[in-house]
Amino acid sequence: MHMMDKGGVNILGTRATRETAEAVRQVTEEVEYHADARIFVVNRKTEAKTSNYILVVTGGTADIPVAEEAAITAEVLGNKVERLYDVGVAGLHRLTSNLDIILKANVVIAAAGMEGALASVVGGLVDKPVIAVPTSVGYGASFGGVSALLTMLNSCASGVSVVNIDNGFGAAYLASMINHMTERSHNASAAI
Amino acid sequence: MHMMDKGGVNILGTRATRETAEAVRQVTEEVEYHADARIFVVNRKTEAKTSNYILVVTGGTADIPVAEEAAITAEVLGNKVERLYDVGVAGLHRLTSNLDIILKANVVIAAAGMEGALASVVGGLVDKPVIAVPTSVGYGASFGGVSALLTMLNSCASGVSVVNIDNGFGAAYLASMINHMTERSHNASAAI
Amino acid sequence: MHMMDKGGVNILGTRATRETAEAVRQVTEEVEYHADARIFVVNRKTEAKTSNYILVVTGGTADIPVAEEAAITAEVLGNKVERLYDVGVAGLHRLTSNLDIILKANVVIAAAGMEGALASVVGGLVDKPVIAVPTSVGYGASFGGVSALLTMLNSCASGVSVVNIDNGFGAAYLASMINHMTERSHNASAAI
Amino acid sequence: MHMMDKGGVNILGTRATRETAEAVRQVTEEVEYHADARIFVVNRKTEAKTSNYILVVTGGTADIPVAEEAAITAEVLGNKVERLYDVGVAGLHRLTSNLDIILKANVVIAAAGMEGALASVVGGLVDKPVIAVPTSVGYGASFGGVSALLTMLNSCASGVSVVNIDNGFGAAYLASMINHMTERSHNASAAI
Amino acid sequence: MHMMDKGGVNILGTRATRETAEAVRQVTEEVEYHADARIFVVNRKTEAKTSNYILVVTGGTADIPVAEEAAITAEVLGNKVERLYDVGVAGLHRLTSNLDIILKANVVIAAAGMEGALASVVGGLVDKPVIAVPTSVGYGASFGGVSALLTMLNSCASGVSVVNIDNGFGAAYLASMINHMTERSHNASAAI
Amino acid sequence: MHMMDKGGVNILGTRATRETAEAVRQVTEEVEYHADARIFVVNRKTEAKTSNYILVVTGGTADIPVAEEAAITAEVLGNKVERLYDVGVAGLHRLTSNLDIILKANVVIAAAGMEGALASVVGGLVDKPVIAVPTSVGYGASFGGVSALLTMLNSCASGVSVVNIDNGFGAAYLASMINHMTERSHNASAAI
Amino acid sequence: MHMMDKGGVNILGTRATRETAEAVRQVTEEVEYHADARIFVVNRKTEAKTSNYILVVTGGTADIPVAEEAAITAEVLGNKVERLYDVGVAGLHRLTSNLDIILKANVVIAAAGMEGALASVVGGLVDKPVIAVPTSVGYGASFGGVSALLTMLNSCASGVSVVNIDNGFGAAYLASMINHMTERSHNASAAI
Amino acid sequence: MHMMDKGGVNILGTRATRETAEAVRQVTEEVEYHADARIFVVNRKTEAKTSNYILVVTGGTADIPVAEEAAITAEVLGNKVERLYDVGVAGLHRLTSNLDIILKANVVIAAAGMEGALASVVGGLVDKPVIAVPTSVGYGASFGGVSALLTMLNSCASGVSVVNIDNGFGAAYLASMINHMTERSHNASAAI
Repeated sequence: MHMMDKGGVNILGTRATRETAEAVRQVTEEVEYHADARIFVVNRKTEAKTSNYILVVTGGTADIPVAEEAAITAEVLGNKVERLYDVGVAGLHRLTSNLDIILKANVVIAAAGMEGALASVVGGLVDKPVIAVPTSVGYGASFGGVSALLTMLNSCASGVSVVNIDNGFGAAYLASMINHMTERSHNASAAI
Repeated sequence: MHMMDKGGVNILGTRATRETAEAVRQVTEEVEYHADARIFVVNRKTEAKTSNYILVVTGGTADIPVAEEAAITAEVLGNKVERLYDVGVAGLHRLTSNLDIILKANVVIAAAGMEGALASVVGGLVDKPVIAVPTSVGYGASFGGVSALLTMLNSCASGVSVVNIDNGFGAAYLASMINHMTERSHNASAAI
Repeated sequence: MHMMDKGGVNILGTRATRETAEAVRQVTEEVEYHADARIFVVNRKTEAKTSNYILVVTGGTADIPVAEEAAITAEVLGNKVERLYDVGVAGLHRLTSNLDIILKANVVIAAAGMEGALASVVGGLVDKPVIAVPTSVGYGASFGGVSALLTMLNSCASGVSVVNIDNGFGAAYLASMINHMTERSHNASAAI
Repeated sequence: MHMMDKGGVNILGTRATRETAEAVRQVTEEVEYHADARIFVVNRKTEAKTSNYILVVTGGTADIPVAEEAAITAEVLGNKVERLYDVGVAGLHRLTSNLDIILKANVVIAAAGMEGALASVVGGLVDKPVIAVPTSVGYGASFGGVSALLTMLNSCASGVSVVNIDNGFGAAYLASMINHMTERSHNASAAI
Repeated sequence: MHMMDKGGVNILGTRATRETAEAVRQVTEEVEYHADARIFVVNRKTEAKTSNYILVVTGGTADIPVAEEAAITAEVLGNKVERLYDVGVAGLHRLTSNLDIILKANVVIAAAGMEGALASVVGGLVDKPVIAVPTSVGYGASFGGVSALLTMLNSCASGVSVVNIDNGFGAAYLASMINHMTERSHNASAAI
Repeated sequence: MHMMDKGGVNILGTRATRETAEAVRQVTEEVEYHADARIFVVNRKTEAKTSNYILVVTGGTADIPVAEEAAITAEVLGNKVERLYDVGVAGLHRLTSNLDIILKANVVIAAAGMEGALASVVGGLVDKPVIAVPTSVGYGASFGGVSALLTMLNSCASGVSVVNIDNGFGAAYLASMINHMTERSHNASAAI
Repeated sequence: MHMMDKGGVNILGTRATRETAEAVRQVTEEVEYHADARIFVVNRKTEAKTSNYILVVTGGTADIPVAEEAAITAEVLGNKVERLYDVGVAGLHRLTSNLDIILKANVVIAAAGMEGALASVVGGLVDKPVIAVPTSVGYGASFGGVSALLTMLNSCASGVSVVNIDNGFGAAYLASMINHMTERSHNASAAI
Repeated sequence: MHMMDKGGVNILGTRATRETAEAVRQVTEEVEYHADARIFVVNRKTEAKTSNYILVVTGGTADIPVAEEAAITAEVLGNKVERLYDVGVAGLHRLTSNLDIILKANVVIAAAGMEGALASVVGGLVDKPVIAVPTSVGYGASFGGVSALLTMLNSCASGVSVVNIDNGFGAAYLASMINHMTERSHNASAAI
C-alpha cells in the first residue's frame, strides 16, 4: 500500500479495501472510497490549476483498476486527467479515432497487460513522455504481467519509460511531477 | 538447418553459409545462394500458380534475414510473396499507408524482435491467418527473442499463432500449406 | 474471458461460471451452458455447411476443458468438429488406431499439458495445419503449461504453430478461419 | 543501433565502432567519434539554451560507456549536461559530498549495474524525475543487467522510471523531452 | 519451521501459529508467543552476557515479521539485540540520523524486500559483517523476494553475505555465531 | 570432463579434443580417439559378455555426439550397444519400422534436443528403463536444452528418468549399472 | 493422479483425498487409504518375493508424503521396501550410522526438497541406481522444488537420475522395474 | 575486477590477466602474479599473526581458481589459510578423512559448482561460519552457477551464508573480517 500525506490536507491510501476506508471514516467523515481503483482519499481539496492534462489510456477493460489508481492519484496531486480506456492495439481504429485527445496530452500513462503493445503505439504517436504501466491482467504466458513488462522495456518508440507491474500510483506520481514542472513554468509566465 | 527436398526438383537448405552453397555448387551448377536469408536453393523450378499471395512483414530492418528465410522458402514452395519491411508499430503511418497490400493478403507472416507488437496490430487489421515469428533481434531485456515471443503469444488479436524464435522456415511452410489449401480449391473451381 | 458476438445471432462467452450463464438466462432463455468447456452460448443457430472438419485431439483427459472450449467455439463459428481425446504419445496405439479420422481432418487442434509432445507426433502424421494449445495441466516441472508451450514451439514437425497456454478459443478461431477459407472455395466451386 | 537525424543538421549513431565512424568520415569531415560512448555525431551544431541541466550519475566506472551514450545524446539534443560518475551506494559519502549538483538537476539519469541501488537512493534525494538505466555491468547473479533492472523497477522512491538495459540513448531522449518541456515554458516566460 | 532445542532449556519454534503455541502451552506454561515474528519460545532463560550487540535493520514496516524472527531468535541464543526498523534507502536521512547505533553494532542483519538496497548501503557504512535477508515483501517485479535476493547477492559493499528469502532464523543463527566468537574471546580476556 | 579409470585397464576421457588425445598418445600408443563422441579411450580391453544390449536412440542427427558419448562409454564399461539414430517423433514410421530392436533392448538411452519428445514415445513402447538425455541441440526457445529437459521430466510414460543436459556419460554409466545388475544374475544362473 | 490397474487385482490411486477413498469403498470394501502418502489401494494381494529391497530415503520429515507415495507404490508393485527418513546431509552422522541398510539396497529412491543434496551423497556411497525425487518442500529460493531439481540434475555422483518434482509414483515405478529385472534373473537362477 | 589498496602497502587486483600484471611490473618490481587465482599482489608484506585459520574447501578441481582468489585475498588481508581441495560430496570419505583440519577452522569458505552441496555438508560438520561461494563450473542445467547458488541458499545447515557466483574475493573479505574480529580479541587477551 502506498500512503501519501500532502501537508495534512490530503491523505491517499492505495490497494485499500472498502473495510479499510470505513475504518478511516470512524476518524473522519471526509473520506471517499473508489472501489475500482481500490483507493481512499481523505479531505480532498486539490483542484487542477491549468489546462495541461495527463492522459490515462488502457489496452482493455481489465486494466481499468490500475488505470484508475493512476488517474485518481494524479487528480489528488492536483492534475487535470483525461481517460481513454479499452483502446488496445488489436483494434487500431479505437486509437486513431481518438487522436485529438492523445496528441494534446502533456504526459501519457499507458496501462496494459497481455502483450502490452499499447505503450509503443502511443509512444510512436505523441512526442510527450509516455509512462508505461504493465498490468498483471492476462493468463498463461502473460506470467502475471511479465510479458507486458518486457514488451514495454523493449519499446522501439522514444520517450517511453516503465514502472513496476500494477504500479499505477508510481506512474501517476511521476506523471504529476513532470506535469507540474511544466505548469510551474506556465504559471510563472502567466504571473509575469 | 532445415533441409527440404520436394520430389527431386527443388532442394532448399536454411542457415547455410556461402561456403556450404559453394560446396553444393561442386555437385550441381543449379544452386542459388541468398546471403540475407542464409538459404541456398537447388534447381528452382516452381512458379506461383495463383494470384493469392503471402505477405511477409517486419518490424525493423534487422528482422529482414528471418523474413527473407520465410519469403524465399514460401517462393520455393510455389507461392506468390509480397514483402513489406520495416513497418514497426512505433511509426503507425508506415503500416496504415500500406493498408491495401495488407488487407488483400491471403496469409501474413509477421517477423519482429524487441517488443514484437507488430503481429497484434496486423492481426487486428486483417481477417486472415497471421503467423508470428519472433526474432532474436534486440538487446538487454529482449533476451534473444523471448520478449517478442511472449508478446506474440499474448496477442489480443484473433487469428494469430506463433512459431519458434527466428523460425522463418517453419512460418513459411505453414503459410504455404494454408495458401495452397485455398489455391487447390480455387484451381478446383477454375477447372470446373 | 473472450466475448464474441457474431452479427447479433450468436454470443459466446468463455471462462464463464454456471452463475454467469444463469445471469444471462435472466435476459434470454436461449442460453446453453457447457460446464466442461466453461462456455455459454446464446441463440445458437449456426450449422456446419461442409464435410470439412476440424479435429480436436488431447493428450489426456485433464486437457478436455481446454479442448471443449476449442471444440464448442469452432462449432459456434460454423464448423464441423470431430473429437479424439486422451490419445497421448505415451500410448502410441491410441493414436495409430485412429489414423483415419486424423488423416482426413482439414485442420487439427492439439491440446496437451505435461510434456506436450502430441502436437509434434500429430504434425508428423498429417499435412494439414496443426494448431497447438499448451494446457496448464500437470505439476512440478510442468510450470503451469510452460513445459508444454516450449515443447510445442520446438516442434520438429512442419505445419505446427502455437497459441497461448489454455487458449482454446484462440486456437478455434484460427482453425475456423483456415477451415472457412477452404470451404468458401469449395462452396464457390459447388456453386458453379 | 539508434540513428537520429535532427532536421539534416545533426546525425547521431549509437553502438558504433570507430570503423563505422571512419566510414562516415569518407562522406563528411564533420564527424566526431566518442570511443567511450560508442557514438558518432555528424555536424554537431546544437547548443544548450538554458541553465537547466540533466545530471547523469553512475554507480561505478564500468557504467561510464552507457552513461556517456546518454550524456552525449542529451548534449546533441540541445541540453546542458552535468556528469557525476562512480558514486555507488556502497560509499554514500561520494553521493552526499555532491548533494548540491544533485539537488539542482532538472532531470537525473542514473546508470548502474550489479545491484543498481543508485536510482533508489538518488530518487529519494531529489524531487525531479529520475530515469534509471540498468547496465549489463557485473558477473554471476547480475545476469547481464537483469538484477539491476529488477532493483530499479522495485524502487521505493517516487519519481523513478526505467528503460531497457544499457539503453543510454532512450534515457537521454526522454530526459531531453522533459527538460525541453520545462525550458520551452521558461523561454516562453523569458520572452514575455 | 525451524526447531531449536538448546540443552533442554530453551525451545524455539519458527513460523508457528498462535494455535501451535497454545498446543505447546498444554504441555508447559513456560511458553511465550510472538505474533509478529510467528515464533514461540519455551522456558526462556538466556541473558545476553556482553555489551556487544547485533543490530537488526529493515527497509520498511512490512519487513518487520522477518526482522522479529531474527531478533527474537538472536535474543533466545543469548545476544543483546538492537532494532532499527523502516530505514529504507529512499529516505537516506532515516539511516544517517541513526549512524551511531549502526556504527557500534558488532554484526548487522539487514532485512528488506522490494529493491533490497538496504544491505549495500549499510554494508558501505560499517566494517562489520552484514547478513542480508531478502524478504518476500512487494508486488509485481519483486517476484516474491527474488529481486531483493539478487540485489543483495550483487552488493558492491564488502562484508555482505546473503541467506534465503525470509530466513530470519538463519540470519540470526549466523549472526549469533559470529557475535559469540567475539564474545568468547572477550570473556576469555576478561577472565585473565 | 568425466574421467574414468577401471582398474588400470581402461581409461576414458570425455569432452576431449583431438589435441588432448594426441597428448595422451605421447604416453601410450594404446589410445583411440572418437571425434564424434569427443572421447578418448586408453587400452580398451573390455568385451560385452552377454546378449543383453543397451539401445541408444536419438531424435535427430545433431544429437549423435551426445549419443556416441553414451554409446562408447557403455561399450567401454563392458556392454553390448545397439544404435538407432535420427528416429524423431515427427516421423513416427522411423520408430515403428524398428520396433523389434527397440522392444528387445534391456535398457534404452534416449538422446534428443528441441522438443525432446522421443523419450516419452519410446517409454510408452518398452517396459524397460528409459534414461533420457536432453541435448543442447536447437535454437530459439530450445534454450540450450532446457525445453528438452522439461519435456523429459514431464514425461507421461512410466519408467523414464532424466540426467543433465548433454550428459551422455552419466546416462551410459547408469544404463551400464542396470544392465550389469541383470547380467550378473544371468551369469550367476549360467554358472549353476 | 496416477492410476494403476495390475491385471484386475490391484488398483492404486495417487494424490487421492480420504473422500475419494471413501467413495471407492462404496464399490468395494477392499480399499485401504494411506493419509500420509495420499494413496488408496484396492484389493492388495501382492507380496514381495525376494530379499532384494528398494530403499526410500528422505532429507527431512516434510518429504515423507512423497516418500510414502513411492514406498507404498513400490510395495503394491511387489517389492520389499525399507525406509530411512530424515537423514539430510546437514547431519551426516544420521546417514553414516545407517550405512549397512544403505549399502545393501538394490535400488535407492532419494526424496528431498530445499537443497536436495541427499541424492548426491547417497549416490556417492552406493554403486546401485539412485532415483532422485525433488520435493516441493521449502520456501523462498526453493521455488517449489526447482532448486532441489537442479541440484539433483547436477549431481556429480554416477548412477543418479531424476524424475519430476513430487513424482514419488514415477520413481517407484522405475525402481520396481529395475528391481524386478534383477529378481527375475534371481528367480531364474533359483529355479535351476 | 576488485581492487584493494591497504594503506599503501598492499595492492591486490582480481580477475587480472598476466598482461595486466606485467603492465603493473613496469611501475614496480614488487608484483606477484597468481595465474590460477587470476590475481596480482603488489608489495606483499602482511603476515598472519595468530594460529586461527580460514579453511578454503572446494568440491572439485575446476573450482580451484575461485578458491585461490579467496585464499590469496585472505592471505593478503593477514590471515593464515588452509586449503582442502576436491572434496566434493559424491566421495564423502574425502571429507571425513580430513575432519581434523575442518573442525579446527575458525571460518570456512566453501567453493563449489554443479550441485554445490559441499556447503551444506561442511556446515553440518562445523559450528563456525561457512561462507558459500557458488562457482560457474559445470554444464547444462548448472546454468553458469545458478544451480549451485540455489543449493547454497537453501542449505539446511545453520551458519551458512552465500555470496555472488565466483566471488572468491567477497567471501575472503568477509571471512577475514570475522577472523580478525576474533583475533583482535585474542590479541587483546594476549596483551594482558
